[in-house]
Amino acid sequence: MLRTHTCGELRLEHVGTTVTLCGWVQRLRDKGGMAWIDLRDRYGLTQLMFDEGATAADIQKMAQGVGREFVLKATGEVIERVSKNPKMPTGDIEIRVTAMEVLNPAKVPPFIIEDETDGGDELRMKYRYLDLRRNSVRSNLELRHRMMQYTRRYLDGNKFIEVETPVLIKSTPEGARDFVVPSRMNPGEFYALPQSPQTFKQLLMVSGFDRYFQIVKCFRDEDLRADRQPEFTQIDCEMSFVGQEDILNIFEGLVKSLFKEEKGLEFGAFPRMSYDEAMAKYGSDKPDIRFGMEFVELNALTQGKGFQVFDAAELVVGICAKGCAEYTRKELDGLTDFVRRPQVGAKGMVYLKCNTDGTFKSSVDKFYSEDQLKEWAVACGAEAGDLILVLAGDKDQTRKAMNELRLEMGNKLGLRKRDDFKPLWVLDFPLLEWDEETKRFHAMHHPFTAPKKEDMKLLETDPGAIRANAYDMVINGVEVGGGSIRIHDRPTQQLMFKTLGFTDEEAKKQFGFLMEAFEYGAPPHGGIAFGFDRLCSLFGGVDSIRDFIAFPKNNSGRDVMIDSPSTISAEQLKELNISVGKV
Amino acid sequence: MLRTHTCGELRLEHVGTTVTLCGWVQRLRDKGGMAWIDLRDRYGLTQLMFDEGATAADIQKMAQGVGREFVLKATGEVIERVSKNPKMPTGDIEIRVTAMEVLNPAKVPPFIIEDETDGGDELRMKYRYLDLRRNSVRSNLELRHRMMQYTRRYLDGNKFIEVETPVLIKSTPEGARDFVVPSRMNPGEFYALPQSPQTFKQLLMVSGFDRYFQIVKCFRDEDLRADRQPEFTQIDCEMSFVGQEDILNIFEGLVKSLFKEEKGLEFGAFPRMSYDEAMAKYGSDKPDIRFGMEFVELNALTQGKGFQVFDAAELVVGICAKGCAEYTRKELDGLTDFVRRPQVGAKGMVYLKCNTDGTFKSSVDKFYSEDQLKEWAVACGAEAGDLILVLAGDKDQTRKAMNELRLEMGNKLGLRKRDDFKPLWVLDFPLLEWDEETKRFHAMHHPFTAPKKEDMKLLETDPGAIRANAYDMVINGVEVGGGSIRIHDRPTQQLMFKTLGFTDEEAKKQFGFLMEAFEYGAPPHGGIAFGFDRLCSLFGGVDSIRDFIAFPKNNSGRDVMIDSPSTISAEQLKELNISVGKV
Repeated sequence: MLRTHTCGELRLEHVGTTVTLCGWVQRLRDKGGMAWIDLRDRYGLTQLMFDEGATAADIQKMAQGVGREFVLKATGEVIERVSKNPKMPTGDIEIRVTAMEVLNPAKVPPFIIEDETDGGDELRMKYRYLDLRRNSVRSNLELRHRMMQYTRRYLDGNKFIEVETPVLIKSTPEGARDFVVPSRMNPGEFYALPQSPQTFKQLLMVSGFDRYFQIVKCFRDEDLRADRQPEFTQIDCEMSFVGQEDILNIFEGLVKSLFKEEKGLEFGAFPRMSYDEAMAKYGSDKPDIRFGMEFVELNALTQGKGFQVFDAAELVVGICAKGCAEYTRKELDGLTDFVRRPQVGAKGMVYLKCNTDGTFKSSVDKFYSEDQLKEWAVACGAEAGDLILVLAGDKDQTRKAMNELRLEMGNKLGLRKRDDFKPLWVLDFPLLEWDEETKRFHAMHHPFTAPKKEDMKLLETDPGAIRANAYDMVINGVEVGGGSIRIHDRPTQQLMFKTLGFTDEEAKKQFGFLMEAFEYGAPPHGGIAFGFDRLCSLFGGVDSIRDFIAFPKNNSGRDVMIDSPSTISAEQLKELNISVGKV
Repeated sequence: MLRTHTCGELRLEHVGTTVTLCGWVQRLRDKGGMAWIDLRDRYGLTQLMFDEGATAADIQKMAQGVGREFVLKATGEVIERVSKNPKMPTGDIEIRVTAMEVLNPAKVPPFIIEDETDGGDELRMKYRYLDLRRNSVRSNLELRHRMMQYTRRYLDGNKFIEVETPVLIKSTPEGARDFVVPSRMNPGEFYALPQSPQTFKQLLMVSGFDRYFQIVKCFRDEDLRADRQPEFTQIDCEMSFVGQEDILNIFEGLVKSLFKEEKGLEFGAFPRMSYDEAMAKYGSDKPDIRFGMEFVELNALTQGKGFQVFDAAELVVGICAKGCAEYTRKELDGLTDFVRRPQVGAKGMVYLKCNTDGTFKSSVDKFYSEDQLKEWAVACGAEAGDLILVLAGDKDQTRKAMNELRLEMGNKLGLRKRDDFKPLWVLDFPLLEWDEETKRFHAMHHPFTAPKKEDMKLLETDPGAIRANAYDMVINGVEVGGGSIRIHDRPTQQLMFKTLGFTDEEAKKQFGFLMEAFEYGAPPHGGIAFGFDRLCSLFGGVDSIRDFIAFPKNNSGRDVMIDSPSTISAEQLKELNISVGKV
């Protein structure tokens, strides 16, 4: 190796030894004949020292000539520092340099390569390879690396087999939009990139692989919102001869092992909640249970008292914000503005202050007596000093708005701490959801999810009420994983496609291979997939998944560093038998 | 779980316990009121027993009604077998079934699901999920799984960080043909799928990641030969602050650890050979050194004696086949036919039999005296009873043909044993190779490979003679990995592109980001990539990589199971702003 040690490992015990280090110039100081360079590599920083009296003149000169981010190779003796730096792991020592080589000079970087940088998003994306030098960014990717190793170790230990499924597959109309790949050898035909390896992992179960996993890239050609990427990574798993309970246990074990290995945290059994309960109590299928502030339905207490808005509402629902009775007019107006935002969507907000003196003050107190308001307070579990916030209207919309308001209040009250982790299983999802636009049912999870046996009878009469054997793992309000027990027989799968509006022919064309496979001895099976980018960002305490991806794309799907996508040559187009634009 | 045990784990110690197993019907026998079913899962086979007297009638009937590949759940008591089967790990016991459920029936499979199958290639590919049930196929994928875990464990233990590089990248004219992906959000532009993560891993070195690895899918849109796949998997690695020697050591360590973990084999230092030596001694840059039979150049001994064919030849080269002096006329004619095949390409073959009685017999003995023939024998190290085979002609073509003949003789003599592993490093590859067709130099490895410093002076005068800091790992004549020390400064990289015929503009457009990165402090670095499919097939003792890929494509790049590639809808094409055919 060009070096004897890394920049992170030298300690007092090395004093007196001669070492060679390689790395980047992080900082330079020069003062009265002395010069110091902090040399950086992935493992740490070590101080190089140059002393006008002791260091050879040419080396002294070289040290004074280097700039930030130069790549150096420096040899010298490890000596004990006069003024130690207890903040640096190597802060007890420095290197008295006796030989040095500039392995590569560096232009002045376009932004400062420190934890606090002056580079804007776009600049840092263009020079991603420089941004990746920053500790904060690199440590995110080191976390990701560890999470991958823990995951595989756990799954390998539980007899899961890692199988690579194909990337060049077949386009299907289900789900999100596919990325497609024109085939040169089959002109006019296209592969698609997988949105998930769903059908392949099910076929592996039909093959008797029993337990499969893969940490795998998936692709969705969707309009990119702030925190989506066209290519993302899943921990994808499937098991045979199991029921839902078995899957929950195995993968609760996986997440527990990740918390234990990465953070030293131990958890008891993860709480479980039905979809219906989650929607009723939190207005969300991914509730953040780091804090309470659960929804209280107030229809019975609030309706029929002459307040038109509540009387006309399908749902009147309140939450209790502890200790917020002292909120000012301005603060309450701020919350009203918040719930009126289009993305929240409420028309207005009613408040009830439970004053510390035992009185009540509400924005609607002309409709309700003090006693009636007290009933609200009792229902909401509010005490003197608390504030009740009430929304009303259409059930689904009001729940959605109240979910946003609850999370906002959680933020305001500091109840959503990044280092507080509250995992949760959400169970019993609906099998289908009605799409008003296309006037047909969509699969809530995907068309391979098994309905609960006891709900099958609803298929003809009330398909929307059928519950699925589907489950999500939610941590701190983030859906980190989801899965289901699958259909494993042809008649049920065929019925499912029919319910989703497929003609027999369409179903056969797209998924005939899977239905045929079910006829050759398919075992009962089920599985789960975790959003790995999201899981890493959650463990890293950062909101954006982009910070946990080495080379992410921007919101237009562009890699601005390599300038991709880009045009291709006329010759390439011709070989692929495609043209840009319309024939 | 639906089962208490797998079909592979019950032993005599379990006798008397009640168990539940799930699996597939492998075999059924029915005889005089008794019935047996061998139930199969990934872990093994267990015999279920049904006894007309003891088993309930409905279960007895069910057992008689099932067919091959039915999926069963069976409960019963583990009993000691009367006639044990020492060939089966579970052969000491059987299950006296007391309850049974058909979890899924099965149609009669289109081919027999046993080690020896009657299914042809095409049928087995169409029903790949059934082919994967066969032990031989599944055990290949189990081997692949283990190889992945060993590899990551070794590299993680050596401080390599696993980083996922993007799959949607940029098309470049270098190397093989790219698969491209039209971008909907950037109409008229395309992503490309990576042929390797080369530039990204180099950028990670510029970022200071120090040691990177990834087991990663790569893509090449080439006409598929027998053993190529459009998507394949690499173990991709890169290191900073190292020379060639460091890389050879680390990755020799990786391969040794794979042999040790998977096969319990220990190796000393792998032999090393220069490219020039490999070509001279074996006529191949991937010599199979499981056997000798090295080339002996015979120009000096054979030319100028009146035999025109040899006199006109650039190279006369022989190999000695031990103990083959007794080859018949017919056998020798067979070898001549072999070397004349177009893919071998020799015009003819000369033999020299070193008879056991000390005499010599050659096809050209009218041109050479007994003493002269003896000189050949001495030069080739031949003894009485050996056969010398000689080819002559243009140097490169003759070496190529002799390589084929040597391997053929190795096969005939049983010298290429599948369980004999002989790894080898081939070093000092030429940097460039001349392409007669385009009249320009191509990079032999890729344009990022560093030339040897001492050869740089040849760049103006004799570029073809420059050696590269490039290396291949060869095992048993198969190139399993290759890599190089990379260029890490802009001027050399620019010069390299120029030598390869890029204009400055082209180089900048395609690789400007990399050359710019080199200006911000790039460390010396190098790496290697192993062909993972190939490595697995070598360890598995099978020639075809297809047997080690769960869902491979056929020679037309089709997945016949899912019927992909396929046409996509007009709507999809419109959204992507492309058309099939010419505008």
